[in-house]
Amino acid sequence: MNLILLQEADFISPDIVRLSGRRLEHIVNVHRAKPGRQLRVGLLDGNIGYGQITTLADQQVELRVELSKNAPPPPPITLILALPRPKMLKRIIQHVTALGVKKLVLINSYRVEKSYWQTPWLEEEKLFEQCLLGLEQAVDTQMPEILLRKRFKPFVEDELPELCQGSQKLVAHPVGGTACPVDIGEACTLAIGPEGGFIAYEVEKLKEAGFHSVHLGPRILRVETALPVLVSRLFPSY
Amino acid sequence: MNLILLQEADFISPDIVRLSGRRLEHIVNVHRAKPGRQLRVGLLDGNIGYGQITTLADQQVELRVELSKNAPPPPPITLILALPRPKMLKRIIQHVTALGVKKLVLINSYRVEKSYWQTPWLEEEKLFEQCLLGLEQAVDTQMPEILLRKRFKPFVEDELPELCQGSQKLVAHPVGGTACPVDIGEACTLAIGPEGGFIAYEVEKLKEAGFHSVHLGPRILRVETALPVLVSRLFPSY
Repeated sequence: MNLILLQEADFISPDIVRLSGRRLEHIVNVHRAKPGRQLRVGLLDGNIGYGQITTLADQQVELRVELSKNAPPPPPITLILALPRPKMLKRIIQHVTALGVKKLVLINSYRVEKSYWQTPWLEEEKLFEQCLLGLEQAVDTQMPEILLRKRFKPFVEDELPELCQGSQKLVAHPVGGTACPVDIGEACTLAIGPEGGFIAYEVEKLKEAGFHSVHLGPRILRVETALPVLVSRLFPSY
Repeated sequence: MNLILLQEADFISPDIVRLSGRRLEHIVNVHRAKPGRQLRVGLLDGNIGYGQITTLADQQVELRVELSKNAPPPPPITLILALPRPKMLKRIIQHVTALGVKKLVLINSYRVEKSYWQTPWLEEEKLFEQCLLGLEQAVDTQMPEILLRKRFKPFVEDELPELCQGSQKLVAHPVGGTACPVDIGEACTLAIGPEGGFIAYEVEKLKEAGFHSVHLGPRILRVETALPVLVSRLFPSY
């Protein structure tokens, strides 16, 4: 937790927040903070700044906050990701959020097992929690939007064209295509397949939607390794 | 497993290998392969090519192999990494190997808990296993070298100068420094601290050894996210 993330409900006056639970524990156990200490805080979907501890008790802490700095600008990327298996999902949501991605569409694909869609980690509240962890890690406040699309074809045919309008459209695919460009300097919609990759039909459908196939060289990376590589390669200045 | 990795002991004649155990299971359960089928294979620290299944039985499979392609060239990077906590270590070794790093030094740092050095995952055989998984994932054959250095100061003062000679020396540190360069086109020694970062004293010692502090922008990433970002940013053509 490199940032203590505040929500509107934490405010008991215009510049005082009262925290308990996980954030209190972090302040006490990790920061070992005492009254007077300044900690980095941010308001969810708002500014970043500092909070000075005014009172600290067993069950709650109060901070006087000043939020004067903007959150870091996000890379202009929309990420379309074949739903990872549940074990990976949590971690990948945190990765995605920490990398500053603000729009994520989890889609179905032939190699996504049907059972993956049943995981409780896809519940709105759980996704929100993982995003919070990613934001706290990355010192960011802007919550990403996550869409779930359980049917590949209707998504690609009916919804994707509008979603990716005006952006460079890339699908990461280890076979064929060209080397993934570096520092593209414009908005991008990036599709990443499941472990094992999109099948030929799916790559074809994405190409029909204007997507261009790119690879990362001879090494085939896991989704969780490829993801930071791709985002940082496309947008090294974010 | 995008590559079936062979070792010298697997050869029963100059071009025939006999496999059992994990690799046999993979051939049967994932590839659902029958005799005649060609699979991608590579020789540990050797070439990559194809193996054609000649016989397949319950306990073993034999393949006739032809190894005509070089392994992918590795990025010229030596990675110095503060020992991650055991839970992360396995995954990070696989990440590092899959990214093509061939020299990894795991070092101590003030924020590395002493107990981390006791984990069985640091045993030579376990590290070897994780590296194998990374190579199989990335379609690479060249085993990385891993050094363990439990004392920060003697390592940095006595061993590091020779180790990093002639290379660009960078320490990834979220505070201060300059933006991490892109596509440096020369050999690099990159030091990455533990979660929470190197302490000021350690950064100072690294600077004395010629290291320059670089950051990845306003977002603070976990080691496992920062690692692929850094390697791909320094060497996007590998």
